[in-house]
Parts: sequence; structure tokens; C-alpha cells
Amino acid sequence: MSKIASTFSRLVRFVPKSNPSKVLIGEPVDAQLDVGLALYQGKEVSVRPFTGASVLNPGQKTESTEIISRILSPLSQNEVGSIRCIGLNYTSHAAEMKLSIPDVPTLFIKPPTALSDPWPAPTILPKITQVDNTGDYESEMVIVIGRDAKDVSEADALDYVLGYTAANDVSSRTSQMNQSQWCFSKGFDTSCPIGPTLVSAALFPDASKFQIRGLKNGKVLQDCPLTDLIFSVPKLVSFLSQGTTLPAGTIILTGTPPGVGAAKNPKEFLKNGDEFAVELLPHVGTLVTKIENHK
Amino acid sequence: MSKIASTFSRLVRFVPKSNPSKVLIGEPVDAQLDVGLALYQGKEVSVRPFTGASVLNPGQKTESTEIISRILSPLSQNEVGSIRCIGLNYTSHAAEMKLSIPDVPTLFIKPPTALSDPWPAPTILPKITQVDNTGDYESEMVIVIGRDAKDVSEADALDYVLGYTAANDVSSRTSQMNQSQWCFSKGFDTSCPIGPTLVSAALFPDASKFQIRGLKNGKVLQDCPLTDLIFSVPKLVSFLSQGTTLPAGTIILTGTPPGVGAAKNPKEFLKNGDEFAVELLPHVGTLVTKIENHK
Repeated sequence: MSKIASTFSRLVRFVPKSNPSKVLIGEPVDAQLDVGLALYQGKEVSVRPFTGASVLNPGQKTESTEIISRILSPLSQNEVGSIRCIGLNYTSHAAEMKLSIPDVPTLFIKPPTALSDPWPAPTILPKITQVDNTGDYESEMVIVIGRDAKDVSEADALDYVLGYTAANDVSSRTSQMNQSQWCFSKGFDTSCPIGPTLVSAALFPDASKFQIRGLKNGKVLQDCPLTDLIFSVPKLVSFLSQGTTLPAGTIILTGTPPGVGAAKNPKEFLKNGDEFAVELLPHVGTLVTKIENHK
Repeated sequence: MSKIASTFSRLVRFVPKSNPSKVLIGEPVDAQLDVGLALYQGKEVSVRPFTGASVLNPGQKTESTEIISRILSPLSQNEVGSIRCIGLNYTSHAAEMKLSIPDVPTLFIKPPTALSDPWPAPTILPKITQVDNTGDYESEMVIVIGRDAKDVSEADALDYVLGYTAANDVSSRTSQMNQSQWCFSKGFDTSCPIGPTLVSAALFPDASKFQIRGLKNGKVLQDCPLTDLIFSVPKLVSFLSQGTTLPAGTIILTGTPPGVGAAKNPKEFLKNGDEFAVELLPHVGTLVTKIENHK
């Protein structure tokens, strides 16, 4: 095995203004642009489309240019399969929650129906979350698997990583705490927006150099370097692949840093009309979603 | 909404002897036959193929006959999406484990890569389970969702049920107990054999009339009526669909009755060469798998 040969630095999946019935992938023309923030601010974003239709098979960059009409999650629901999510994985978040450091990663799974797109696609709080208004945010860095992985060693793990993106692991705290499992309370439709861009592991091989922030209505509530991860990218990929095939396209949400709403005093739960931004820098950019109550 | 119109009584998915590169679905010619047991005993099983290629779109029964070369899980990995599984759901199992009755269903998820076929397809114990030999069996009744379900009431829930089959929720107890979540310890490849047949909810509308048994190497270790379920089929479908789309094809493993290996004295864990049978009667039949250590 060797690292995944990458034809791209970072990709977006989008509907172009030129043809609202098409879905394209491509590279933003401005290599430094925070695509998510620019679109949120109503700016025009130009992209060089690739010949392929999926970030898993991007093909080659073309010379044409398209304007983004609507940005999509970098991978589709069909591509991500079951969404792997890691519980407690930041040293400082463990301290904040007064929890001991786990020996092995804690895995839970969101169904692919939870996946959703960046702004203007909304994060919907279902009625069951509205009952007690304990919808919460979790800013997370996401590993994207690029080739089928099974029984992979830590030393080889990065050979299976296509790149990185960002996610909000939206959670319903009452449901989470009233049950011993998290798959229900974190598995609602639209509870897993990801994006805005997929950054190639070839461009940015060391995920510990990311800085992640979470902002609600512009106020910084989470801010942490990825050096604080308890289980690194190679450890996570190796552990999760033991006895278990992680198909190409699998995404792994790597846990959230300190500052979730449930840990604030007073608590800072999400409510209808809030805007939450997960910022993963450099390269990935800002994933904004608007919170809406399900009618 | 109304009940799903059913063109079949019970279906098998299989590779026919006449063409080993084809996958067919169809109805066993002998309506009373325990297909899983017959195949395990090396008997010939005749099937009337349907015109469709999936139990979700079976089409119509044809007049031809095919012999089963290899039986498959009634639904494919692509069709089941994320596999929903319920924790503690039998009153007598709660008593055995000295656990209180939960207020709401406990949900965990297996990835679709865990799905596997009945005998002779093996259940593989991964190396991580072999370390301490705590592989365990869980005989379970399975609900198959036949049309997309979201925010469904208990009163309407059965309108979304296509039928029922059986599963073994194979588990690695050390991994399960060392972590707060179950998705890893129950998510290994081949940890979710299902089958042998899918019985239409039109033929058998009341799942509480099933009797489930678990047999290791012919010895009965689990034996319980489905009247013992804490959360009924309508309650489960309604709860799991709150805020969450359950796409057609979703399978829901409904929990296991008393008698799992970890609760025996002495404990009865699975080992290389064991044969485990989940028997769900009437109609569904016997799901046999052979336990093999991953080399």
C-alpha cells in the first residue's frame, strides 16, 4: 500500500448555476477562499469542475469554470454508509466533563439519513428534541476514508485516508442522557451537516495541525487545537477497522472539544433561528447551518 | 396509508443451481418447509422465482421452478442501510441480567457490512474477539420496513412493516463491557446473519405470536415467546421513526430473550467450529451459521 494518489487539493460538491439539475465536484478557483463563509456572506464562488462525479473518483480538473448555486455535503448519503462517530476524544473535554480518559475509542453510529448540507440547508430540531429544548452542537473534524480498510495497522492507517472535512454532531441531550446509547439522540435527519470542502490528505497530511472552533450566532463557544485529541487519526482508523470493513467513503467524526452547550453555565442549547458555525482551519473552512424547529 | 399489499407469503433470496451468476427471489414450493433447516441437512429446496430482484419490489410469482444453490440474506447490504438494533427488550432477560425495565427502547446500530447469509456462510470471530474468547450469540426477531417511515404513530406503524425474519446479533462481550457503546463490539463483518426467509406481515400480522429459540450445537439455550417483548413492533417502529427517516429496507433487530452465553453459569461463549441456530416459528424457520475464527 501507499498513500492515496490525489489529483486535488480540496474539493466541493455543488449544484452549478448553469444547470440546476446537475451535481458537480470541483476545486475552488481561489485556493485560499473559505468557501463556506463566502457563500454564507452571499459572495459568488467560482469552481473548476472535475471530470468525475464523486470525491471518491474525482478524475481530472477541467479548464472550465462554474459558479456554485448550492453547496452540498462533500459526499452523498449513498457514499458515506454508516457514519462513524467517536465519543470523548479531547483531553480538555474529558477534564471539563470530569470524565477519565478512555482506554479505547468510544464508537457510536449515525445513519446516513442524518447527513446534510452546509448553509443554506437547515439543521432541523425534531419535535422530540423541542419538548425540553436540549438540542446541542458539537464541532468536529471528520476523517474521510478513500479505500476499503480492514484490519489496518496504525503504521499503515494514513494510506487509507482520502482527506478531511468538518461536521456538526447535533445532539439531543435529554434523549442521550435518558438512554445508555447515543444512536437515537444523535441520529435524527439533518443531525450531521458536513463540509464545506474536503481537503486532501496529500495537501494536509497531519490532522493534528488543524484548529477547530464552534461559533453560535458569531460568538466563539469552542476553540481547540487538534493536538488535544486523545486518539489520533491513525489510532482511530486502525481501531475501527479491526474485524470490520470501512468501505471507501466512510466518514469518521472524531469527537468534539470543550465548550458544548450542555457543559456551559448557564447551558447554551440550540434554538430555532440560531446559526451555528464549525470552523476547521486551515483549508477546510466554515460549515454554517441554521437551526430550525420541525413544524 | 394502508397495510403494504403483499404479493407473497414468504420469500427467500438465493443463487439458483441453474445459473451461479444470478441472484433470484422467490417463494419455497413447500409452504410449510423450514428452508434453513432443510438446506443445513443437505436437502434439495425448490423455489418459485418472482419477476422482481428484491424483496422490496418482488413483482409476481412465476410458474417456473429453481433449486437453491446458495441461500442469501433476504435483503442485501445495499438494501438494509444502517441496521437498527434494540438493547434490553425482553422482560425475562431484564430479570436474568438484574436490570430495570427501560422507559424507552435502547438503540444501537450495526453497519451494513455486518450483514451476512445463512448456512453455509460462516460467522467469523475477529482476532480482537479471540483474545479473550467472549464471542456470544443473541437470537432475535427482525422487523423489515417496507416503505419509508418518519414520525409514524403507533397506530399507523404496521402500515410500514413488510414482514419479519430472524437474526443472530453476534457480540464480543469484552469489547462491549469495556466501552460505553455497543456499535464496535457488535459491528464486525459477518456479525449479523439474517434469514432464512422473510415472512410477509400480511401472512403473519401479529409478531407477538412468534416463538424464538437459540441452539448451540443442537442444545437449546434460548426459548421464549415474543409476548415477552417490552417494546412491541408498533412501539419500536414509532419510536425509531421520530425525527428520523427509516428508509424502505431498514431492518430492526428487536433484542434477545434470556439465555445468552454471558448470562450462563458457567458462561457459554462461542468458539471455532460451533454451530448456532436461531429458530423463529412459525414460518420464518431456522437460521444456522457456523462459527469460525478469523485466521
